Amino acid sequence: MQGLVKVAVDAMGGDNAPEEIVKGAVEAVCESKQIKVFLVGKEAAIRSELEKYSFDKERIEVVNADDVITNDEAPVMAIRRKKESSIVVAMNLVKQREADAFVSAGSTGAILVGGQLIVGRIKGIERPPLAPLIPTLKGVSLLVDCGANVDARSSHLVQFAKMGSVYMEHVMGVKNPKVAIVNIGAEEEKGNMLVKETYPLLKNCNEINFIGSIEARDIPTGMADVIVCEAFVGNVILKLYEGLGAALISKIKGGMMSSLRSKIGALLVKPALKKTLKSFDASEYGGAPMLGLNGLVVKTHGSSKSIEVKNSILQCIAFKEQEINEKIKENVLNQD
Amino acid sequence: MQGLVKVAVDAMGGDNAPEEIVKGAVEAVCESKQIKVFLVGKEAAIRSELEKYSFDKERIEVVNADDVITNDEAPVMAIRRKKESSIVVAMNLVKQREADAFVSAGSTGAILVGGQLIVGRIKGIERPPLAPLIPTLKGVSLLVDCGANVDARSSHLVQFAKMGSVYMEHVMGVKNPKVAIVNIGAEEEKGNMLVKETYPLLKNCNEINFIGSIEARDIPTGMADVIVCEAFVGNVILKLYEGLGAALISKIKGGMMSSLRSKIGALLVKPALKKTLKSFDASEYGGAPMLGLNGLVVKTHGSSKSIEVKNSILQCIAFKEQEINEKIKENVLNQD
Repeated sequence: MQGLVKVAVDAMGGDNAPEEIVKGAVEAVCESKQIKVFLVGKEAAIRSELEKYSFDKERIEVVNADDVITNDEAPVMAIRRKKESSIVVAMNLVKQREADAFVSAGSTGAILVGGQLIVGRIKGIERPPLAPLIPTLKGVSLLVDCGANVDARSSHLVQFAKMGSVYMEHVMGVKNPKVAIVNIGAEEEKGNMLVKETYPLLKNCNEINFIGSIEARDIPTGMADVIVCEAFVGNVILKLYEGLGAALISKIKGGMMSSLRSKIGALLVKPALKKTLKSFDASEYGGAPMLGLNGLVVKTHGSSKSIEVKNSILQCIAFKEQEINEKIKENVLNQD
Repeated sequence: MQGLVKVAVDAMGGDNAPEEIVKGAVEAVCESKQIKVFLVGKEAAIRSELEKYSFDKERIEVVNADDVITNDEAPVMAIRRKKESSIVVAMNLVKQREADAFVSAGSTGAILVGGQLIVGRIKGIERPPLAPLIPTLKGVSLLVDCGANVDARSSHLVQFAKMGSVYMEHVMGVKNPKVAIVNIGAEEEKGNMLVKETYPLLKNCNEINFIGSIEARDIPTGMADVIVCEAFVGNVILKLYEGLGAALISKIKGGMMSSLRSKIGALLVKPALKKTLKSFDASEYGGAPMLGLNGLVVKTHGSSKSIEVKNSILQCIAFKEQEINEKIKENVLNQD
């Protein structure tokens, strides 16, 4: 079993657990021979789902965990107390190097806390950011940080920029990715204290291709590949992407039902429109990595179906093969 | 001329000045007998535009100003040095009580600086916020602050909430407007330092109908009438509204052109779709008031056409008639 990328999957996390999670795991091992999955959670429930499929039995292992952390629980408390929860058990597999990566559609808070407390930071990384991909007119951009690191300092943002750049280049295959900082104007002297402090530091980074400030208006055009901001702003951007997309779609649907003429038109455009809007749905790009940990932690959207779970599992291959954490040590921490 | 609402309009500001600005002023005085406009800017240019229309000559007065402040200029410097600019001359009319209000589609930075330095704050107001209306599924919400007040303190945000509430109730006619603070989770203990500090202060305000935190995802649904945040976050929300709307429309257009079937459908839905999308375009609600000044300052979108200019001028009527500044003194500063 040498050379396999081993992924510990939280079978109990998300709106569609365990059905879609188990299905996604099966799809992943069927699609790539490089993957081995540990399905972590209530064994009986997982096994009864697994019975529905045929797959290489050697590459899916069930690891029992009797407890589940819900979205309503205070994350720090939950991680500390629920030692038998699927998240804690699965993360411990990564900590003990039995798995390379962890994937969950469960509580974001618990995943962020567990990532830090159980999997642990790479020595020298101040704060591990959560970095989802968001859709743009050109493809996708990495939004870093959308995590729990509110009230960040400029040194954190510089590490976010460098780690995000490594990820986009080596996992997503974007050559010399353009890095920008979210700001309220394009000029260097614009911004709040944090941005004004961070801007010159980024400008002096030789390791990244810093293109300056980005106004929120230009984020959806794909002007930058890596979009750096502190977590509060990142969260607003990510959530507004979701909310505004949903609102516009509901408006459009309502608008098209407003006359007979447009109702007929709506029937004709529906398939094309559906496909288009899907490509611009932030939740479609569910696999958000938490960067800078001793192992990969991937948070997929709570409403993930098997396809997103599968994609999140498969994205761990590039992460391991490209030795992202080694590159982070080299490029972010200047260690060889 | 007693009882008229007198509005000093910057005839030189915005992408379509002076043509659309002059046209909007004419439309405003034709639509309401309560309005008198001072058109401030290059006299010859304004007069040659005015010649195109017929209107009550007593209710439009041209005030010459030879200079123009552009979007590229550093605002503080521009306001201090360009004493003969249309913005400075027009704002001085408000300062000297010759006009009740000021309307401009020009440089946001210069308007914000001029509002503070020339028109001046109401005594006791710490920072005057810029408060645009943004479209939601239920109508519009007031986003306060989108101005230059970065790195705000909690006491500022409390004043924003109270002033925004007065504005929505008495200018927009929303009874007992729901006030929420932008946050990264719904629970009281969530947030960055500023939000955690502000939340209990808002909760203890008897003057407002505080409903708690709002996540960015819920802003477009119209969950709150007054959305409170500091200016950096407000700017990100406003600009992302614009950018994401534009990106989605461009995606949708592209998607509908992808097959013959959808092309035919597109022709049929086009009028309904256009109307729908227009109603969800943040730039359509151009008249953003700057609150807490000795007079009303309204910033309209840089690309405003005559209709937005007219609407911005007409909105000054309610502001004066409802004695908004008196209500701000009562409700925000607890003065009688």
